[in-house]
Amino acid sequence: MTNFAIRENRAMFVKKLMDELNRLSNEDMQRAEKQPIIVILDDIRSMHNVGSAFRTCDAFRIGALYLCGYTPQPPHRDIHKTALGATETVPWQYFKTTMQAVQAAKDEGCKIIAIEQVYDSTMLDNYKVTLGEKIALVFGNEVGGVSEEVIQMADECIEIPQWGSKHSLNISVSMGVVLWEMVRGRQL
Amino acid sequence: MTNFAIRENRAMFVKKLMDELNRLSNEDMQRAEKQPIIVILDDIRSMHNVGSAFRTCDAFRIGALYLCGYTPQPPHRDIHKTALGATETVPWQYFKTTMQAVQAAKDEGCKIIAIEQVYDSTMLDNYKVTLGEKIALVFGNEVGGVSEEVIQMADECIEIPQWGSKHSLNISVSMGVVLWEMVRGRQL
Repeated sequence: MTNFAIRENRAMFVKKLMDELNRLSNEDMQRAEKQPIIVILDDIRSMHNVGSAFRTCDAFRIGALYLCGYTPQPPHRDIHKTALGATETVPWQYFKTTMQAVQAAKDEGCKIIAIEQVYDSTMLDNYKVTLGEKIALVFGNEVGGVSEEVIQMADECIEIPQWGSKHSLNISVSMGVVLWEMVRGRQL
Repeated sequence: MTNFAIRENRAMFVKKLMDELNRLSNEDMQRAEKQPIIVILDDIRSMHNVGSAFRTCDAFRIGALYLCGYTPQPPHRDIHKTALGATETVPWQYFKTTMQAVQAAKDEGCKIIAIEQVYDSTMLDNYKVTLGEKIALVFGNEVGGVSEEVIQMADECIEIPQWGSKHSLNISVSMGVVLWEMVRGRQL
């Protein structure tokens, strides 16, 4: 059955075509209102994770992405493979150290939230999203997590509840989960 | 400052050590109550995405993972690189076709939910999680999405709301986002 026949004959569950998804053009995206959220990547090693960060920030229309320390920057073929063009639509900046990036976010009036498994953390589902509140979310290195100095600059730490046997989620997945929780209550 | 000094001197935001995370052992994981959720992968191509599916299913203690069609199966070095041992703790099964897997899930009493951008979809944040309800979530191929025949077997389609410029989220990220939404209201 062709796509056309399916679309003509069925009332339910017809896949939306690309132009039926009502996505923004790159130009409209630049002008569009964004979530008051900055995502800060603290020494992320993998190109794949950086690309995924761009793509997720695009989808949820996140305000800005700060790449810090040895986190790789675009343009790079391996970032592009996962980002699929989102490096052109997500406002991003590079900082030599994560502490500088966190300070810049503080100066912009953001509450600093590190995503880390610490004592005194707030479990993700208990975090109360406040409309209009400006926040910066710090995601740490694939092995070591968020660095100690950066954690100590945070106003709050958020932990994703987990009930399995392994230490943590993949960093791209953590970004998706946390960003979804932050935007689900305050959609644009 | 050593980790020990940090732990002794600070009251706030001390990272939890591995054994302070209270994760289950592989043996306890096998016996533990799981979420009444089956994740079905419909012709997923990438080893990385399959590895990530295992790791996310472990973290959220998902009931079972069904790998279908040409979705790669463990053991494989490239799946292991992302799954990091979760292939040993998540109950999984291989099906030649996704339709067989969906039928098996139906026979187990699951409501079938395809994750796809279709007309008549339910936006993720509007999905009402019912405690105890058995569900099977179908995630589709990286390019083509969930196949047409499988969508037509679904009871419901869920769509992740997106406000950006790109077509869709990375499949590993989609799995994280949807599974988190399903378990956040019914924690074990």
